[in-house]
Amino acid sequence: MPASAPIEFYFDFSSPYGYFAATRIEALAAEIGRMVDWRPYLLGIVFKTTGQSPLLGQPLRGDYHRRDMARSARRLGLAFSIPPFFPVSGLAAGRAFYWLRARQPEAASRLVLALFAALFAEGRNIDTPAIVAEIAAPIFARPVAEILAGMESPEARGALRQATEGAIAKGVFGSPYFIVDGEPFWGHDRLEQMRDWAKNGGW
Amino acid sequence: MPASAPIEFYFDFSSPYGYFAATRIEALAAEIGRMVDWRPYLLGIVFKTTGQSPLLGQPLRGDYHRRDMARSARRLGLAFSIPPFFPVSGLAAGRAFYWLRARQPEAASRLVLALFAALFAEGRNIDTPAIVAEIAAPIFARPVAEILAGMESPEARGALRQATEGAIAKGVFGSPYFIVDGEPFWGHDRLEQMRDWAKNGGW
Repeated sequence: MPASAPIEFYFDFSSPYGYFAATRIEALAAEIGRMVDWRPYLLGIVFKTTGQSPLLGQPLRGDYHRRDMARSARRLGLAFSIPPFFPVSGLAAGRAFYWLRARQPEAASRLVLALFAALFAEGRNIDTPAIVAEIAAPIFARPVAEILAGMESPEARGALRQATEGAIAKGVFGSPYFIVDGEPFWGHDRLEQMRDWAKNGGW
Repeated sequence: MPASAPIEFYFDFSSPYGYFAATRIEALAAEIGRMVDWRPYLLGIVFKTTGQSPLLGQPLRGDYHRRDMARSARRLGLAFSIPPFFPVSGLAAGRAFYWLRARQPEAASRLVLALFAALFAEGRNIDTPAIVAEIAAPIFARPVAEILAGMESPEARGALRQATEGAIAKGVFGSPYFIVDGEPFWGHDRLEQMRDWAKNGGW
């Protein structure tokens, strides 16, 4: 594998720790001269395979992580709250992402950041296709109706399904999850280790 | 709560991440002028309450964490392997800890480090009371037979049970788990955050 392989960045649009990682990963990748391959997928499908359940619904761990998420966001200086309709599905967001990326790859990461901020900083429900399209329209300079139609296309559906199957095939089971030079790292709190691993060729 | 409150350090003797934290926490606490209150407890009892299962037995997550543990140990320069008889119960180790700490508190943390190293660096089964007593004897300069008798005493049994109940009462659900100035931190990877929180009075 070439030393310049991109960082594979797997995340679910409903994942607070995925949001935190998304705000930091481009700067971190730039430090080590790597590109980022953004790969939103549906973590809920993986949960069906592994028998896991959404973090915030778990006894004790759920309460702890609500606190840890708020604390992590404050440390990063990010506006953050868990919206009342949480968790949401990343279906609409993921379909929009892959359909738009195929057309304007350079703007794809901006869409991710805008969708995460809409959900966690503004409390907008990105489970709603119309809201996703409305957020995407100015970023890609395309009409809302065109994006909505694209999201419903077999291409968009297939791309998100394929991304989720690809994540499962690589053993991805969480969000955020990174693979660099074949080495997996799970969690926002592994970002620096992942960077150091890529920089030094392991340890 | 006074600013000089100790760091409550909860861990299970079968926890690799607990081992990693144990090797680092005293130096880290010294940086911020805090004491460490070492609190081994039985995580398995908590799992019965929360419905969690041992990490390494979980699909996907288990494999990932075996890799992450080995990688973390290499980074810390610690000899480490998961012994074939893993996981072990921390019953014998925990009883020995509390019985001996009541008599020679100054040596208690050395016992923890010796037991963790025996398990993870030397592959010795610390589930066996005789092995625990043999490891403890030179540290506390007491005969093996006396320590074995102490471990079986109602005092030792009660102290470990009470420690586990105390952990549950505080909402502790993992290993390592830290509470400082009332703020909980879960995981070896939260050590630095915990230190910074204690140093700065939160953020």
